[in-house]
Amino acid sequence: MPRYRLLVEYNGTPFVGWQRQDNGASVQGVLEAAVIKLCGHRIAIYAAGRTDAGVHATGQVAHVDLPKDYPAETVRAALNYHMSPHPVAVVEAEEVGDDFHARFSAIGRSYLYRILNRRAPPALDLHRVLWLPMDLDVAAMNEAAQRLIGHHDFSTFRARDCQAQSPMKTLDRLTATRVGEEIHVVAEARSFLHHQVRNMVGTLQLVGRGNWSADRMAEALEARDRRAGGPTAKPGGLYLTGVKY
Amino acid sequence: MPRYRLLVEYNGTPFVGWQRQDNGASVQGVLEAAVIKLCGHRIAIYAAGRTDAGVHATGQVAHVDLPKDYPAETVRAALNYHMSPHPVAVVEAEEVGDDFHARFSAIGRSYLYRILNRRAPPALDLHRVLWLPMDLDVAAMNEAAQRLIGHHDFSTFRARDCQAQSPMKTLDRLTATRVGEEIHVVAEARSFLHHQVRNMVGTLQLVGRGNWSADRMAEALEARDRRAGGPTAKPGGLYLTGVKY
Repeated sequence: MPRYRLLVEYNGTPFVGWQRQDNGASVQGVLEAAVIKLCGHRIAIYAAGRTDAGVHATGQVAHVDLPKDYPAETVRAALNYHMSPHPVAVVEAEEVGDDFHARFSAIGRSYLYRILNRRAPPALDLHRVLWLPMDLDVAAMNEAAQRLIGHHDFSTFRARDCQAQSPMKTLDRLTATRVGEEIHVVAEARSFLHHQVRNMVGTLQLVGRGNWSADRMAEALEARDRRAGGPTAKPGGLYLTGVKY
Repeated sequence: MPRYRLLVEYNGTPFVGWQRQDNGASVQGVLEAAVIKLCGHRIAIYAAGRTDAGVHATGQVAHVDLPKDYPAETVRAALNYHMSPHPVAVVEAEEVGDDFHARFSAIGRSYLYRILNRRAPPALDLHRVLWLPMDLDVAAMNEAAQRLIGHHDFSTFRARDCQAQSPMKTLDRLTATRVGEEIHVVAEARSFLHHQVRNMVGTLQLVGRGNWSADRMAEALEARDRRAGGPTAKPGGLYLTGVKY
């Protein structure tokens, strides 16, 4: 059973999320249906990050064990052919050893959160950005973000249904930068709690509006209590951009 | 009747085009419905370029005469409010004189055509780019494009149903550049024939694949015959990016 590592891009808008669920189409389901068409077998695909409904990916990584030794190029082309017209694409495929696991071998995940910061709502980027029309102080957001860097108990930014054993995580990067009409928040860590990026962005938004200081952000982290944090930012602005191994 | 100039952005995918038609939703129809909600009157909106079905805009310009003197900011905000959730946005609104006409005052139009040039099909940019997976010689495309610059009879690149009185146009710019995984073709002229940009891109594609030389492009132009040109590139890669007055 040769193992293939897949670099996957998708538009999360029409999906219930990465994971197969009873209530709608999932990215995993679309990929697994294509694998059945390729080789006739129902085979589970594993991903580095189980993104939520509406969350996009430009750099998701998954793996699958196929019953036969296909050229990697054939795997990529055949899966893409069978997935059309779903907005999911295998950008690269590569044969890897049995010891590679998309989720457990990962040592870093990168996310981008896009905020459209202009008076007019998004048209071309509907469901791809969070629209915030008010003035936002990006320098203040970036300063407050630095208070979250490091090894901490991130309970304040953890979803209630998060299944991680511990709320302790090490945040390696959290930056807010203005890019044209947008503000880009980039987050990097070995791994994240459920909703951690969206909860951090929702809280940074309060700083950007001038409601919160950087000190308040540090206090919220200290509180280790979800009620001390800001709201959960919408899924459509979030992109899983890369996974490190 | 104060006149307002509107800078309009839209995703052309769900529309039959700019122009109101019986067979589906149009950008003009969405805007005019919002004007009715704003002021209670059915008022025609005029645009600089009547884009086709599936063609997008980041810089369409339109004008409308309203029965009452609203602050421009109110016009922008109210139209956007009433157009939601359609993927159309008024990015700017400005009160202008009666002598301004979105179509007839325009002295230049700019278009961008996006080609996704990678092995994997688009996922996030489905319906936003033309996917060409084969190797393309961008330098050759750009060289051939230069043969079309200037004042010419563009019949070779003119749609059969084009209603312009003359096939003579002056092409000011046509460039092909690699931008990451994409090739961007930028076209600028005072005005274009119907399908001219898409027909030029469809022909440049033949050059990129190595099927046509730059000389063949010049000969095709000389032929002044649609049958001498290449195919019409799909609408989803095309963006009206700006209008000059």
